Amino acid sequence: MTAADPAARRLRVALLGCGNVGSEVVRLLNEQAADLAARVGTPLELAGIAVRRLDKPRPDIDPALLTTDAPALVARDDVDIVIEVIGGIEPARSLLLDAMKTGKAVVTANKALLAEDGATVFGAAREYGADLYYEAAVAGAIPLLRPLRESLVGDHVHRVLGIVNGTTNYILDQMDTHGAGFADALDEAQALGYAEADPTADIEGFDAAAKAAILAQLAFHSAVTAADVHRQGITDVTAADVASAKAMGCVVKLLAICERIPARGGRNGRGVSVRVHPAMIPRSHPLASVREAYNAVFIEAESAGSLMFYGAGAGGAPTASAVLGDLVAVARNKAGGARGPVESTYAALPVLPMGETITRYHVSLAVADRPGVLAQVAEEFARQDVSIQAVRQEGHGDDAQLVLVTHRGRDAALTATVDALRRLESVREVASVMRVEGDEIL
Amino acid sequence: MTAADPAARRLRVALLGCGNVGSEVVRLLNEQAADLAARVGTPLELAGIAVRRLDKPRPDIDPALLTTDAPALVARDDVDIVIEVIGGIEPARSLLLDAMKTGKAVVTANKALLAEDGATVFGAAREYGADLYYEAAVAGAIPLLRPLRESLVGDHVHRVLGIVNGTTNYILDQMDTHGAGFADALDEAQALGYAEADPTADIEGFDAAAKAAILAQLAFHSAVTAADVHRQGITDVTAADVASAKAMGCVVKLLAICERIPARGGRNGRGVSVRVHPAMIPRSHPLASVREAYNAVFIEAESAGSLMFYGAGAGGAPTASAVLGDLVAVARNKAGGARGPVESTYAALPVLPMGETITRYHVSLAVADRPGVLAQVAEEFARQDVSIQAVRQEGHGDDAQLVLVTHRGRDAALTATVDALRRLESVREVASVMRVEGDEIL
Repeated sequence: MTAADPAARRLRVALLGCGNVGSEVVRLLNEQAADLAARVGTPLELAGIAVRRLDKPRPDIDPALLTTDAPALVARDDVDIVIEVIGGIEPARSLLLDAMKTGKAVVTANKALLAEDGATVFGAAREYGADLYYEAAVAGAIPLLRPLRESLVGDHVHRVLGIVNGTTNYILDQMDTHGAGFADALDEAQALGYAEADPTADIEGFDAAAKAAILAQLAFHSAVTAADVHRQGITDVTAADVASAKAMGCVVKLLAICERIPARGGRNGRGVSVRVHPAMIPRSHPLASVREAYNAVFIEAESAGSLMFYGAGAGGAPTASAVLGDLVAVARNKAGGARGPVESTYAALPVLPMGETITRYHVSLAVADRPGVLAQVAEEFARQDVSIQAVRQEGHGDDAQLVLVTHRGRDAALTATVDALRRLESVREVASVMRVEGDEIL
Repeated sequence: MTAADPAARRLRVALLGCGNVGSEVVRLLNEQAADLAARVGTPLELAGIAVRRLDKPRPDIDPALLTTDAPALVARDDVDIVIEVIGGIEPARSLLLDAMKTGKAVVTANKALLAEDGATVFGAAREYGADLYYEAAVAGAIPLLRPLRESLVGDHVHRVLGIVNGTTNYILDQMDTHGAGFADALDEAQALGYAEADPTADIEGFDAAAKAAILAQLAFHSAVTAADVHRQGITDVTAADVASAKAMGCVVKLLAICERIPARGGRNGRGVSVRVHPAMIPRSHPLASVREAYNAVFIEAESAGSLMFYGAGAGGAPTASAVLGDLVAVARNKAGGARGPVESTYAALPVLPMGETITRYHVSLAVADRPGVLAQVAEEFARQDVSIQAVRQEGHGDDAQLVLVTHRGRDAALTATVDALRRLESVREVASVMRVEGDEIL
């Protein structure tokens, strides 16, 4: 076959970034070349790889492919598809916009960019008629975006609820399994490579919030950015919280939750709630059995009912698998002159403030050990119109504790209640406050 | 808008069949018309509905849409997309072929047709350049085919293992939970509508085998038909089998298994094993907790690792959700002049006979209560080169029992061993034989 043979037309791929994920992508492109060609219908060829430094040893990569000039690689006429695994906002955004502007299809794993400035990137894809695929941006190899974007596109999604950050799930799982404190569990996660040297993005919930924004946008066909997401990390989760959850048959998980807030009349609801926070869920809930660094996401849709997707949410190989799946999709489209789905925000549902979200609370109080305390506490809940589902009194004297779980109520009313409890003379300390998800417990 | 307004171009949909699934499709097409139009970019309109009988009361359906002449409806020039939810081989096959031949895109839920004669239907889609989507054919609304067909298309699938028939899972779950016998559990399933009046297709594994064939074809890019699938139903599963599984920390499930059989050298393996049979799996396996009529499928791929998909595998609404997802996909393709993925069987892996499959066995024997019996039994396993993982002796006198679990071995060697055991004088009865899947147990 020669270049003049039209049947020999190859699709040429530029790779931006060659770290953990990028080097896996190169390996798979080489090892699976024959399979990929058969599945696309046309061979794929790596046209170049943009890296930051040329002097890093890369024994398995042809040095002739490497360049530090990413803009020039993206601008090349003979490049059909650009894969971006650099991460971060810039220069990734400019490179992707330039790629789409010059007719290239784009595959990216960049959750930060899509969550922070999805409007620009999705807008460019629409404007230039370019394919933009990003399955790898959320939950690694777990096919989650494609089901939301395509399989459930004829359905009405009520809720997406999931564990989308492996680091925090590993830490919380260690705390639950071994009774470890947060600091010790974090140390172990770092020693094992589950947490980075600077763990802020994971433990403060930034990573999960970016993923929640992307999921909410797809689920509700509305613009949602990372800044819209109510975010609370796991740094304040104590061994006592985890033990308290255990005593109720629950486990603490960092959840990303995207849901419609119902309105009277109108099927779209008043708006959506998009949030990331630790929550207690019953051990019988399927998400409770998601251990170690695994990810899992529940989707509740009107016709489809409850669906769950489970798998490895991160790592070079799983993320590369998602990138390659997208690469085959855009390559098939290129070869067939077709186009993938385009994001739409036609429903334009507003993201409601956290206070308007409907949640349930678990509150653990250190109280004075005398009659009438429960009545005073219950009075504060009633004042905010919050109904109590269950109460347990434990201990005596200085150890006297009151554990309450509420029914569902406005989050603002629940936080106002907790503030009022802090001011009660008979309440010595609000020991633990945590939201509760899943079925009724206790 | 008038018909002359190009912006008003509607995509017209013909529906073949208006039973449980079809009537849900009609309802959703009406109720979600605005959402669907926004998501496709063009309104969808129901052009006609082919039914068997016009006199059945259908209060929510415009009678002007109904016809008994399905071929004429399919042949209409103003129809763009045909949805087939009739089921069975004919007339469904002829109707779908005619539709594709005349340029229509096709969405079908017909697992029997695709499993029995996929070659003809997929071949027609290729030949006529027609879209053929069929997510609803396997596991209802659980997005399973699209992930296999698209998300994992850049990966190397080793194994698909799943519960794909809700009726049998309900029956086995009842047997496990309440110790019910098969006949009683089946009666209950029928009373509750989980099993049909003639339950043969479910309990004999035909339904699961058809799904296994479709999954294997997609996973391994090879032609697999229902006739290639080794099939064993659950009618011989006894309360004693279930109790024996329980004693080992296992549960009995009807599994559909599609896997590569490894070869020395060569990454594709010698061929594939595609089978449906009851198997014991450890209670710690994620599939063990799939209760009632739910479905779940595990996929093991080289880069993606282990993925699980869970949800309602049947029912009018979930199946309709899958149909609508496919409808939006083909409608977007139609509107954009694009085409979806085409099935390929380029890998052409052979389906190996059951005897060459690698499995593990659980064998429960009623034996004579005297020394030397275990030695005789062990000798028969050794003769076939089958290694024993664990043995338990139970009871005395007439109740003396020997329970064995083997390591992995060729299925043919395992069945030969069981045959030899039946002929042993000291073995009074082979009380139970069942394959074991999942991690090592006992």
